[in-house]
Amino acid sequence: MKDVLDLEIPTYDDMLAAHDRIKPHIRRTPVLKSDYLNELTGADLHFKCENMQEPGAFKVRGASNAVFGLTASEAAFGVATHSSGNHALCLSYAAGRRGIPCNVVMPRTAPQAKKDAVRRYGGTITECEPSTSSREDTFAQVQARTGGEFVHPYNDPRVIAGQGTCSKELIEQTDGLDIVVAPIGGGGMISGTCLTLSTLAPQTQIIAAEPEQADDAFRSFKAGHIIADDAPHTIADGLKVPLKDLTWHFVSNHVTDILTASEDEIVDAMKITWKYLRQVIEPSCAVPLATILKNKHVFAGKRVGVIITGGNVDLDNLPWTRKA
Amino acid sequence: MKDVLDLEIPTYDDMLAAHDRIKPHIRRTPVLKSDYLNELTGADLHFKCENMQEPGAFKVRGASNAVFGLTASEAAFGVATHSSGNHALCLSYAAGRRGIPCNVVMPRTAPQAKKDAVRRYGGTITECEPSTSSREDTFAQVQARTGGEFVHPYNDPRVIAGQGTCSKELIEQTDGLDIVVAPIGGGGMISGTCLTLSTLAPQTQIIAAEPEQADDAFRSFKAGHIIADDAPHTIADGLKVPLKDLTWHFVSNHVTDILTASEDEIVDAMKITWKYLRQVIEPSCAVPLATILKNKHVFAGKRVGVIITGGNVDLDNLPWTRKA
Repeated sequence: MKDVLDLEIPTYDDMLAAHDRIKPHIRRTPVLKSDYLNELTGADLHFKCENMQEPGAFKVRGASNAVFGLTASEAAFGVATHSSGNHALCLSYAAGRRGIPCNVVMPRTAPQAKKDAVRRYGGTITECEPSTSSREDTFAQVQARTGGEFVHPYNDPRVIAGQGTCSKELIEQTDGLDIVVAPIGGGGMISGTCLTLSTLAPQTQIIAAEPEQADDAFRSFKAGHIIADDAPHTIADGLKVPLKDLTWHFVSNHVTDILTASEDEIVDAMKITWKYLRQVIEPSCAVPLATILKNKHVFAGKRVGVIITGGNVDLDNLPWTRKA
Repeated sequence: MKDVLDLEIPTYDDMLAAHDRIKPHIRRTPVLKSDYLNELTGADLHFKCENMQEPGAFKVRGASNAVFGLTASEAAFGVATHSSGNHALCLSYAAGRRGIPCNVVMPRTAPQAKKDAVRRYGGTITECEPSTSSREDTFAQVQARTGGEFVHPYNDPRVIAGQGTCSKELIEQTDGLDIVVAPIGGGGMISGTCLTLSTLAPQTQIIAAEPEQADDAFRSFKAGHIIADDAPHTIADGLKVPLKDLTWHFVSNHVTDILTASEDEIVDAMKITWKYLRQVIEPSCAVPLATILKNKHVFAGKRVGVIITGGNVDLDNLPWTRKA
């Protein structure tokens, strides 16, 4: 692990600059509330609906900040990345808006809806095996061939500064929050949340939510150093990737706690989100609500922001109708 | 048909009073846009997402206006209605918030999701056959037994004034609109839209959208008098009911045109709404987009408001996965 002094840590001003840069390319997504979910949890929940971004996920923020921050000469060869899905399609979307190429490496097991969207936005997909090692090897070949600017899905200061704009809006759209909960995979959204709230609302607690079956961030947090698993199995396909040095910096310094949920609890939270918010969300994005329902004592009586990170789901293949 | 002079026609001031009365009980729903749907249609589309109301439909506006406008003595016996679904559950929701009983007559064929929601909100259901005549007969019995205040799903000045608050918000949330499109069944939403826009934005055209297989409003509009069908067959279950005198007053005086769409076009519009707006909407609510896609020449180059009226769908029984 690199020493923290070697890291290019994004600042609050970087986040403010990112927001100005990306505003024409993203939506200021609405914040939904539900009396029934408030009754069910005892908390005052505010759902920031990033599933309503044009490409269906918060990652359009970081991707747009990276793409539109490139100089013309940097942008000439386009951008390239590896991603379990949403970063791939959001980077394709941002690159498409700027009119530059986008090459992405995706696991062959990534959801069809996400692969379709990458292609619709003009991205080029190279498939790899569903493991961190295969993904990184394949990507090295693609980048060598294309020369595209590498935009890491989360361990990139431009991306983290972009993701931080989400909680800036969330704070502006509410009357203050005691806790913000977001899912954690590689830690990009959580790091952006830490970046923004540690300056804008330092009294607000930041809780990360993770699948039990991909709980490397939870174990890292308890151990005090990064623990990375290769190819964990969980329905929350967006949360399988490990923390990296830059996101670990934010997680280890600013996160209050990490809570986990089982596969069944995640699917139940998806169903409840549909029933009461009428939003169909990805399993990854249901993990925060799953942890709230499981740990009501932590959230009861609190003003809680919940980041609904994305909605790219195969409607014809929902987890509760899927053939075994 | 009663003479127009006998009708209690709601005024613009009634709509303003309704908005003040219902604001604590409804959501100011967001307006979504999609670059891709704009490209597909050539229009500048603004989707007013009433599917994000707590009970999932715009009808919470009219129902809340009726329920919270009752005096204490009027409210003592509760409210009663007949409805193909959304009015039933929205009236149950509003009555539940006021703490008064709600009795509803619903066709036994109404979607299970809607019946479940009525019961969840505390409403009591009496089932009838899926025809206008059975519905009205059964309702007369229920009302005689309970003495509840009748709140008609659409032919009621309190309901129309409440529905009119939706296009008031839509105008406030946009920079002006050339056309507003909404579905037409009994005509409550369209009448409210006419009530509001004829004063607030008289230059804005109002287009009603109807299923071909339940096109009684279209034929009425062309004939110049109400034509009512008993028990039409369409997937758009919210739009099977006929116009009545009060809604005919608004339709005949203020609607620019009525456009129709086939069953397949309606299902395609549902899929497209999911794909590009990431909203799962009812077949009834997909009819406006279906007519826009079918009549692009009418909408191209125009600023168009589209009212997404509701989102109470059985996710496990979508029209494109449904068993034949």
